[in-house]
Amino acid sequence: MSHLDFAKTPPMGWNSWDCYGASVREDEVRAHADFMAENLKEYGWEYVVVDIQWSEPEADSTWYHAFYPLCMDEYSRLIPAENRFPSAANGVGFKALGDYIHDKGLKFGIHIMRGIPRQAVHQNTPIKGTDLRARDIAENNICPWNSDMYGVNVDKPEGQLYYDSLMELYASWGVDFIKVDDIANSYLYGGGHLKEIAAIRKAIDKTGREIVLSLSPGPAKVHEGWFLQDNANMWRMTDDFWDHWDALYVMFDRCAEWAPFVRPGNWPDCDMLPLGHIGIRAHDGGGGDNWTRFTKDEQYLLMSLWTIFQSPLMYGGTLPDIDDFTLSLFTNKAVMEMYHSLTSRRQLYRDEQFIIWEAASADDKYYGVFNVSEAAAELPAVLKELLDGESYTDLWANQELAKAEAMTVNSHGGRLFKVVK
Amino acid sequence: MSHLDFAKTPPMGWNSWDCYGASVREDEVRAHADFMAENLKEYGWEYVVVDIQWSEPEADSTWYHAFYPLCMDEYSRLIPAENRFPSAANGVGFKALGDYIHDKGLKFGIHIMRGIPRQAVHQNTPIKGTDLRARDIAENNICPWNSDMYGVNVDKPEGQLYYDSLMELYASWGVDFIKVDDIANSYLYGGGHLKEIAAIRKAIDKTGREIVLSLSPGPAKVHEGWFLQDNANMWRMTDDFWDHWDALYVMFDRCAEWAPFVRPGNWPDCDMLPLGHIGIRAHDGGGGDNWTRFTKDEQYLLMSLWTIFQSPLMYGGTLPDIDDFTLSLFTNKAVMEMYHSLTSRRQLYRDEQFIIWEAASADDKYYGVFNVSEAAAELPAVLKELLDGESYTDLWANQELAKAEAMTVNSHGGRLFKVVK
Amino acid sequence: MSHLDFAKTPPMGWNSWDCYGASVREDEVRAHADFMAENLKEYGWEYVVVDIQWSEPEADSTWYHAFYPLCMDEYSRLIPAENRFPSAANGVGFKALGDYIHDKGLKFGIHIMRGIPRQAVHQNTPIKGTDLRARDIAENNICPWNSDMYGVNVDKPEGQLYYDSLMELYASWGVDFIKVDDIANSYLYGGGHLKEIAAIRKAIDKTGREIVLSLSPGPAKVHEGWFLQDNANMWRMTDDFWDHWDALYVMFDRCAEWAPFVRPGNWPDCDMLPLGHIGIRAHDGGGGDNWTRFTKDEQYLLMSLWTIFQSPLMYGGTLPDIDDFTLSLFTNKAVMEMYHSLTSRRQLYRDEQFIIWEAASADDKYYGVFNVSEAAAELPAVLKELLDGESYTDLWANQELAKAEAMTVNSHGGRLFKVVK
Amino acid sequence: MSHLDFAKTPPMGWNSWDCYGASVREDEVRAHADFMAENLKEYGWEYVVVDIQWSEPEADSTWYHAFYPLCMDEYSRLIPAENRFPSAANGVGFKALGDYIHDKGLKFGIHIMRGIPRQAVHQNTPIKGTDLRARDIAENNICPWNSDMYGVNVDKPEGQLYYDSLMELYASWGVDFIKVDDIANSYLYGGGHLKEIAAIRKAIDKTGREIVLSLSPGPAKVHEGWFLQDNANMWRMTDDFWDHWDALYVMFDRCAEWAPFVRPGNWPDCDMLPLGHIGIRAHDGGGGDNWTRFTKDEQYLLMSLWTIFQSPLMYGGTLPDIDDFTLSLFTNKAVMEMYHSLTSRRQLYRDEQFIIWEAASADDKYYGVFNVSEAAAELPAVLKELLDGESYTDLWANQELAKAEAMTVNSHGGRLFKVVK
Repeated sequence: MSHLDFAKTPPMGWNSWDCYGASVREDEVRAHADFMAENLKEYGWEYVVVDIQWSEPEADSTWYHAFYPLCMDEYSRLIPAENRFPSAANGVGFKALGDYIHDKGLKFGIHIMRGIPRQAVHQNTPIKGTDLRARDIAENNICPWNSDMYGVNVDKPEGQLYYDSLMELYASWGVDFIKVDDIANSYLYGGGHLKEIAAIRKAIDKTGREIVLSLSPGPAKVHEGWFLQDNANMWRMTDDFWDHWDALYVMFDRCAEWAPFVRPGNWPDCDMLPLGHIGIRAHDGGGGDNWTRFTKDEQYLLMSLWTIFQSPLMYGGTLPDIDDFTLSLFTNKAVMEMYHSLTSRRQLYRDEQFIIWEAASADDKYYGVFNVSEAAAELPAVLKELLDGESYTDLWANQELAKAEAMTVNSHGGRLFKVVK
Repeated sequence: MSHLDFAKTPPMGWNSWDCYGASVREDEVRAHADFMAENLKEYGWEYVVVDIQWSEPEADSTWYHAFYPLCMDEYSRLIPAENRFPSAANGVGFKALGDYIHDKGLKFGIHIMRGIPRQAVHQNTPIKGTDLRARDIAENNICPWNSDMYGVNVDKPEGQLYYDSLMELYASWGVDFIKVDDIANSYLYGGGHLKEIAAIRKAIDKTGREIVLSLSPGPAKVHEGWFLQDNANMWRMTDDFWDHWDALYVMFDRCAEWAPFVRPGNWPDCDMLPLGHIGIRAHDGGGGDNWTRFTKDEQYLLMSLWTIFQSPLMYGGTLPDIDDFTLSLFTNKAVMEMYHSLTSRRQLYRDEQFIIWEAASADDKYYGVFNVSEAAAELPAVLKELLDGESYTDLWANQELAKAEAMTVNSHGGRLFKVVK
Repeated sequence: MSHLDFAKTPPMGWNSWDCYGASVREDEVRAHADFMAENLKEYGWEYVVVDIQWSEPEADSTWYHAFYPLCMDEYSRLIPAENRFPSAANGVGFKALGDYIHDKGLKFGIHIMRGIPRQAVHQNTPIKGTDLRARDIAENNICPWNSDMYGVNVDKPEGQLYYDSLMELYASWGVDFIKVDDIANSYLYGGGHLKEIAAIRKAIDKTGREIVLSLSPGPAKVHEGWFLQDNANMWRMTDDFWDHWDALYVMFDRCAEWAPFVRPGNWPDCDMLPLGHIGIRAHDGGGGDNWTRFTKDEQYLLMSLWTIFQSPLMYGGTLPDIDDFTLSLFTNKAVMEMYHSLTSRRQLYRDEQFIIWEAASADDKYYGVFNVSEAAAELPAVLKELLDGESYTDLWANQELAKAEAMTVNSHGGRLFKVVK
Repeated sequence: MSHLDFAKTPPMGWNSWDCYGASVREDEVRAHADFMAENLKEYGWEYVVVDIQWSEPEADSTWYHAFYPLCMDEYSRLIPAENRFPSAANGVGFKALGDYIHDKGLKFGIHIMRGIPRQAVHQNTPIKGTDLRARDIAENNICPWNSDMYGVNVDKPEGQLYYDSLMELYASWGVDFIKVDDIANSYLYGGGHLKEIAAIRKAIDKTGREIVLSLSPGPAKVHEGWFLQDNANMWRMTDDFWDHWDALYVMFDRCAEWAPFVRPGNWPDCDMLPLGHIGIRAHDGGGGDNWTRFTKDEQYLLMSLWTIFQSPLMYGGTLPDIDDFTLSLFTNKAVMEMYHSLTSRRQLYRDEQFIIWEAASADDKYYGVFNVSEAAAELPAVLKELLDGESYTDLWANQELAKAEAMTVNSHGGRLFKVVK
């Protein structure tokens, strides 16, 4: 079995970072799983992902406490902080939380950092399955923005063993999705990150479990695209995405570049959706506890781009108090049908005002049109020509349109059209 | 009709550069067409391409005469130098030569430089279809290694008109293939080359003729891969390729990076094959009038990589005096069958010694194995595992092999295997 | 004699670009010389410099007419356009204008582009002193922003001869200052600009005339600083400077980097002073026919930095209608005394709010203090400490100050202090 | 007192790295001090420098033991490993060794890494003079090639306090020279190394002791040259220098670039002299326990360049068993007189074959001539012209030469000439 044999459509779910930073607690995770099962599952939403530093007892926001001790087992593996995840007591790790999520028909995801805990290295603790110890397999390289880990020397069989022992543990917890961080984009230390990606790939394959592998942060490099296709299911195309127009605007370039790499099992990733209520205990991106700073037009544009490009969809806002508008973005049947069925997609046209994408499923043809200018404008002539003589549906408006319809697109707005046969 | 609707398999043919530099003459072109029609056409070889500076009467090698006058028509368009191409007399251009080639069941290709002749600009000559003149549409940018042309300002409609007038002329000559130079890789002047590529695409589409568009020189940029897919049939992945191991070795990296972009109508290009007798009047690449400096093993390796990657195949050596060995590389039925039928291909494995590619057609599975080390070696374990329990054919040896065959690959050698069902 | 034996203090004068772009006329030049002789000469201002394209009859602003014919003599050398410079009639070139300026006790400067006219190359005109012609010594490299010239191959003795013939002509006109453009900063074609600089140095030395050599545009590269010291009197540290705070602010970095290279005969150049009335026929820098957009505070800051760093001072505004404030910046005796006498200077301190420079002459110590923040502020503690127990003079205010004076510096303002012994 | 007030001539001495890597022992240091005092002191050699990792008890070569515990005092400061430096017993640190060296009329130097020990951070040990602890002042940045330290946050006053406490300790030991490593060239983490350099400068200044500050590794950046002049006495111009011609050849470029920055108190550094017997317990640079791989000609060239450029001279080979030839390079009175007295120096000329430097003291003029080609050659014409009509001395040969002497320079050889008045 290869990783291309699952994740046949882009992964969809919820991730705790945009709301809670490094500090999410078990009750919060459960509440989101509850809501997802009841309201979103039918549209394809299924992964519930606990983001970074679930081993750090004092984590309280997106700001890490540098060099603080982490919870760790006897084999130098990080385990959940029990004060934050009570069900992890008695050494069961995330097994109980995973079971809870699975019982709802959903899937369970976790975040890890590339490497081995620095505290393990300086305490020189054991590695499962070998007499070598943490110091012997650590590499003198680090993540520049988090002080938890050193890299692992996977040229040594014992380095591979360590990653094997990690994945074995996660598989035993029932993990279905792993977001590995500090690994997709690395200018540090000459490209060693690629070796660690390959080692993690092997370690997952050994478990026999269908665990989606997601790589962060971006920007991943296009010239390494072939390697990422061979080793991962998702990889980030940009640095962390927040609710700023500039960050959204640049995604059009990234999607154009990465479109040739999209295929079943391989889903270049536009990052989480900072929509709805975010920033509860997250300070990144200049935000605070607030509702997304994207306008409604920008949210349509964002969802149109993410879905026609077939980025994974990982919602970053809260679910229990989600509003109707945000929910409507995730539960549009026509959009979701397009999103799940596309077999090709590419940027078709671009000028200062409009960007147009075209995409196709086995049966249907779609266009996405995006007004990236600062003023509302009529549909561009290029698109009118393409639609000329066709009937088409506006997917967000859920409206069939006569031929040659005059139509305005708001500034920073986006629309999706399906050509009606 | 889109350019993806033709060139459904990678273009194959002969190009005059590696033998004659800028100086090929009509009799030489005809002699190559004759040989191709008789001996190679049945294997898929069909394009006969006249490379650079067919407008320069005094061209005599790969070394250009800077700032020499070129032959030009009344609309600032370069035309063949009649002293070198006698059939171009009386203003018929390449029509007669094209007809000759077509009559043999082959196709005719030419090389052009991006832009408009500098001599047109400084003489301020007319442009077809407009009152503007050469000076009005020229851009102050140049090719760094050839002094013939200025760029064209295609933001002006008259700039597009100039390219339209060129393609109209070439279509009237019966041109089937255009290699545009100084356009695929440009660090000069901030990326304007992309606009000129798009203008040439439009100009070709307007002719309604199925003219293959090939872009040079490389390295093209992977992050512009999506754009190249949308606008061209072929683009170079490296700078000019000559018969050096280093240049061949680096092609493995380029092929790995570009493999996701290969598809019908889009054929990233490893460049011409400097095999057989080359350098008659060409001095580039450190060579002279000689037979290729590649060993036979390296030639097998080269042909195995080019074909399993599905690079275009453009032979650079002479045809009339070709030797049996070189000819055998181009006329292996099993290799050609693989080459024409693949639907996917990728680098599977790489270590210091071996590189393995795998590829598939609708019906068959193939492996290419390449020994890039300095010593002969047994097949790598990875490949043995893959072939274990299978029967397979060695395509170059044309030999069916029992399971678990012990086999050696020479240093710098390559083999192609087809798995027998 | 070496170029370090003259220009012992930084060159001062007027340059036509900021007012007139490429289009200055003889009457305008004379009017500026008249004013300078009468009002500024006594303060050290002496060079009157005719900037770019004095050979282009139709030049009318900062916007060049690409590929237009230029006035040229029989040896491929550009000569003044007589419609703009009537005294150049009868082949005397700039001799008459130079004499006029010299008679006033001033010095005469001109601008040239690196290279040989493209029109000479395409017409293949003669070179003085050799049978080779323009085509034989031209290099296929160009300036990216002006279409007049090709580079010269100075590896050929005849290339050096061409530059010799140019400098011989300019010396015969009485030229005292040459600003060579397209030569100090070149990313094009692999560094060949350094060879042309050396060739121009040699050509000037052969004339025996004390001609100041000024190189443009910037940014020159610090790692080539040693070479520039050996070959030129001035070189630009940035791209063209206009009246924007951002451009002024960045000059602090450049001055800090280049300060180790300042010495008699070598004056790294902050570029012309876009003060007073500018933009008469100049459109660059976003301006038009207007008075400088710098505030008075910014003008004090600018003049303080330029003088304590000892940049050349080349006024870019008009002189005949200059206002009292602008004139006062150029005629402050205490500032000019500092400017002419410094023997060392360096950035001493920098924080978000203040930058402090210190400098010394043989006898005196000076400080420049610059408030680069957006609010007025008291002198920084660092400077107060340095001045503690000293008496000092505020040079712009011409005011002696008691010790420990409380003092405010306006936002974007600068002051110069001399420590009184 | 400023650091420009001492180190008025370039520092000279011996450093333990090239012989012993990280593993030098006290008896070895003393033996080198003994020899220096007796044989080299009179020529200006005076610093005895203990290089990296004197706190690591198990250090045994140039290969570090990653993550091993280091000897540390109660304030998170590294102290000598007593098993290697017995006189450090009882908490006296390097005081006793320093005294021994001072008693011989020599000076004592040590090496340190930028930052605070990682073991201090993970154990969260105290900092002298504050309640904050190691974790509070550490930065999450590291040296890529050594695992001992984290960076220090010197934006916090307590970070500065830590460096103050270090320098206070070193001053109490009698340290005269500190080589700080991982600080002169840093591509990591956006330039924060400059802040740490400034903090170390301040900390040294507070001690009131004349401690030479030397920064490693290179290449330092020329555009930061002004900053290095303001803060250090020496800084490396290249990465580690070993006995390879390529590394020696490239030093000509570096010296040309950095010559404008040489002045009393500021000595850009060509690195240690890998001459004589080296590699006893050092494996870097491809060497082993052997005599230098430089030819005698290359050694003359090296010493000629180092001295005419006025690089610091830090011998890297063993002293007790030094041979006569090597010793002769360090004890040539005429060369040393030149070296100590120069007031200016620069590259004068360069072609494919020869490089010429010129230099001057208050009274004398010198030339260095270097044959960088692969064949012996006569003195270049340029130099003959300069020496024409002069008498001159060949400093290494100690020979006065008649005018217009014919002279050959060996391949890779160098000579120094003094013009005799």
